[in-house]
Amino acid sequence: MKVVIVGAGAAGLTLASNIRNKDEKSEIIIFTKSEDIAYSPCAIPLVLGGIIESFDDIIMHDAKHYLDKNIQLHLSTAVTAVDSSKKTITFKKDSKSETITYDKLVLATGNELIAPDFDIDNRDNIYHLTNIHDGRIIQKSVEGKKEIVFISNMSIGIESAYELAKKGYDVTFLEQSFGILPLFLDGDMSGKLVELNEGVNFETNANVISITTNGAKKEIHYNDKIITADVVILPSNKVPSTVLAKQAGCELGDFGAVKINEYLETNVEDIYAIGDCVEVKSHITGTQTVSPAGTTAVRQAMILANNLAGNKLTFNPVVNTVVSKVGDYNYASSGITESFANMIEMPVVSTCIETCQKARYYPQNNKLYIKMICKLDGTVVGCQMLSKGDLSSRIDTLSFVITDNMKCEEIIQKEFSYTPSLAMVINPIVQISQEIMKKIEK
Amino acid sequence: MKVVIVGAGAAGLTLASNIRNKDEKSEIIIFTKSEDIAYSPCAIPLVLGGIIESFDDIIMHDAKHYLDKNIQLHLSTAVTAVDSSKKTITFKKDSKSETITYDKLVLATGNELIAPDFDIDNRDNIYHLTNIHDGRIIQKSVEGKKEIVFISNMSIGIESAYELAKKGYDVTFLEQSFGILPLFLDGDMSGKLVELNEGVNFETNANVISITTNGAKKEIHYNDKIITADVVILPSNKVPSTVLAKQAGCELGDFGAVKINEYLETNVEDIYAIGDCVEVKSHITGTQTVSPAGTTAVRQAMILANNLAGNKLTFNPVVNTVVSKVGDYNYASSGITESFANMIEMPVVSTCIETCQKARYYPQNNKLYIKMICKLDGTVVGCQMLSKGDLSSRIDTLSFVITDNMKCEEIIQKEFSYTPSLAMVINPIVQISQEIMKKIEK
Repeated sequence: MKVVIVGAGAAGLTLASNIRNKDEKSEIIIFTKSEDIAYSPCAIPLVLGGIIESFDDIIMHDAKHYLDKNIQLHLSTAVTAVDSSKKTITFKKDSKSETITYDKLVLATGNELIAPDFDIDNRDNIYHLTNIHDGRIIQKSVEGKKEIVFISNMSIGIESAYELAKKGYDVTFLEQSFGILPLFLDGDMSGKLVELNEGVNFETNANVISITTNGAKKEIHYNDKIITADVVILPSNKVPSTVLAKQAGCELGDFGAVKINEYLETNVEDIYAIGDCVEVKSHITGTQTVSPAGTTAVRQAMILANNLAGNKLTFNPVVNTVVSKVGDYNYASSGITESFANMIEMPVVSTCIETCQKARYYPQNNKLYIKMICKLDGTVVGCQMLSKGDLSSRIDTLSFVITDNMKCEEIIQKEFSYTPSLAMVINPIVQISQEIMKKIEK
Repeated sequence: MKVVIVGAGAAGLTLASNIRNKDEKSEIIIFTKSEDIAYSPCAIPLVLGGIIESFDDIIMHDAKHYLDKNIQLHLSTAVTAVDSSKKTITFKKDSKSETITYDKLVLATGNELIAPDFDIDNRDNIYHLTNIHDGRIIQKSVEGKKEIVFISNMSIGIESAYELAKKGYDVTFLEQSFGILPLFLDGDMSGKLVELNEGVNFETNANVISITTNGAKKEIHYNDKIITADVVILPSNKVPSTVLAKQAGCELGDFGAVKINEYLETNVEDIYAIGDCVEVKSHITGTQTVSPAGTTAVRQAMILANNLAGNKLTFNPVVNTVVSKVGDYNYASSGITESFANMIEMPVVSTCIETCQKARYYPQNNKLYIKMICKLDGTVVGCQMLSKGDLSSRIDTLSFVITDNMKCEEIIQKEFSYTPSLAMVINPIVQISQEIMKKIEK
């Protein structure tokens, strides 16, 4: 089998490695326009903050790692054409074009930035922050500067804002929405996250109109105000990269991303698509959505590798389970927010509790804030958490609850572990389920 | 409704509080032979080790807390008789007997110690370690002494052994089985746990024959050896307390504990039983078993409170999900061990991996050792973990996996959270599932 993979992000590289793990013989060829591969974009804020020493540390493998596994990896190489009837692709390297055949073609082309919807008179000291290349540039450009303004960024931006503030920069975050991370946190929880943390000056509902230059300073015009900055980080709005998919005859979905079935197959025979360029189904609403997350890409890659090896695993509808660190606090989310439920007019009941991670009397403890959103029959559709302590496995449990359509009354029947130094005897998820049950009974 | 509860351990007290939370009017009366209530037995090792300052700190509520909630709590009071036809119980307080009626009677009588199966010539400096009273006595009695020997204890004993060793005592642990915590850990994992930790001198397969006294010293005779000690902690072997249950006409099960149905009802009308005195069903084998754990007691109490309020929740078969701290390491387990699978002749495949809790490049990281046990079709039936990091929510996820009869191939289709400072991009549970799948394919 000759597998051609276009794209070497989390999706493409994980797929290549997983195919190789199952099968020593297949020919595996990857093309990427980029020079940087196999790094963790989520770790960029940690390098900017100095928690991880260097950008080199977050690169997990070099090209040789893949060559050693007999995976052909073409860096800085654009695939310029696909012919799905002849089953060929054409790529351009060092200004020479070449055409090769494939048995299976996997589009893992990711997404691409779109320009912000406001005017910028001059791009000096204005950057995007989406990849390791951006990270290295920003790390240098902020040196010796003071004021940094972030505009409506998602996780990597918000995390970087806090990390740079900790290093002594004067950081402002202008958020267009009602609160930060609006896809994952309701206003009450994101407000709490901002309130618990220190160091970054936040403005929500900030509608940026333009950025102008005044000597060495940038002036960001928003609402009826102006704020100055030495460095500006732009929003990272992106659209799926679908040029090749369209050329190959692949159908796109409601969000302009490649349409795939549960086996990650496009409508074109022997062409598959995974990662940020595809549309997926939402577990809660049953409708199409996008899920541009590394975890989604990796999961799709593992499932596709299994299926290319003859299995028939399905990529299930997503609940968007996330965890991350903002300043001194971790946040986690799975399922839909209450704001989203309201938007789609789904009747829900929700509650928030403040509890502990460990037994109340245990000395080294962390507060835990949980919000849970349920349908009126008690089925959990969303959960959000904040704590200085680890939330990763805790939200994974909720991810299972939500994908399995569990009700609160089923949660209190579940078995949770307990020891005073690590957990509460009545698990916080059980505590909040009981509160929701009380609300529903009323 | 007049509810009489016999026993004020985790089961009895949680039940009383949960009934009151749902219903302000019911008359709730609790009887306990003990003077100590509402403390966490699992925290005893932490007090002996000085992590928690005093035994008073692990008492969550005093009797007044319950009186304030209009719960009648009779300490140091034995219930001496039950008449299930007249629906009365008789109790004895200050040598006076009194008989009262009940609408619902809940037996939460717990279990009781049995004498060790070896000879002891003199009980000075020889103790059990099962409750706060024992803890206080041992705390005093080890003062100024040096050598402490524990014999075949479960969690509280093992944890206390390590905590006392950290304080400078010369501690030996004589384990009758192939390894410590044999109900939760296979020999490979318990061996690893002992190997990773320092401070306690372990001997497995140690068959204690007698303890004799030689001046101020105790001599423990086991196998063909003798070891001396200043203080000896005996095994905490227990049997369910069923005197009242038998008198009331309640049927007992295979293990001599009270037989209940999934609604926690005994065979006698209006008599329920919860906690350490009952038998439960094993999720894996479908057969009767005992589950003398605080978490089981609390879960049964919450479910029974719901059912007494008119709901119809079920107490589901158990998988025995546990977590605890032994020395510098936490261990966790859910489901059955491989040794148990072998004993009941269930064909299984298992594997162990050594991985990380966080992204490999993240500086503050912890190693994570996982063993997973699956049926030959990939259904997970058991999991064991060791790490210096938190394992509580991680094993909860496995608890869900095992109770939901999930297969490895379903696990890799599940959504897990990821951020480098808290998690790996491919969750360790997914990593080990892939290893099991490879083994099964072969």
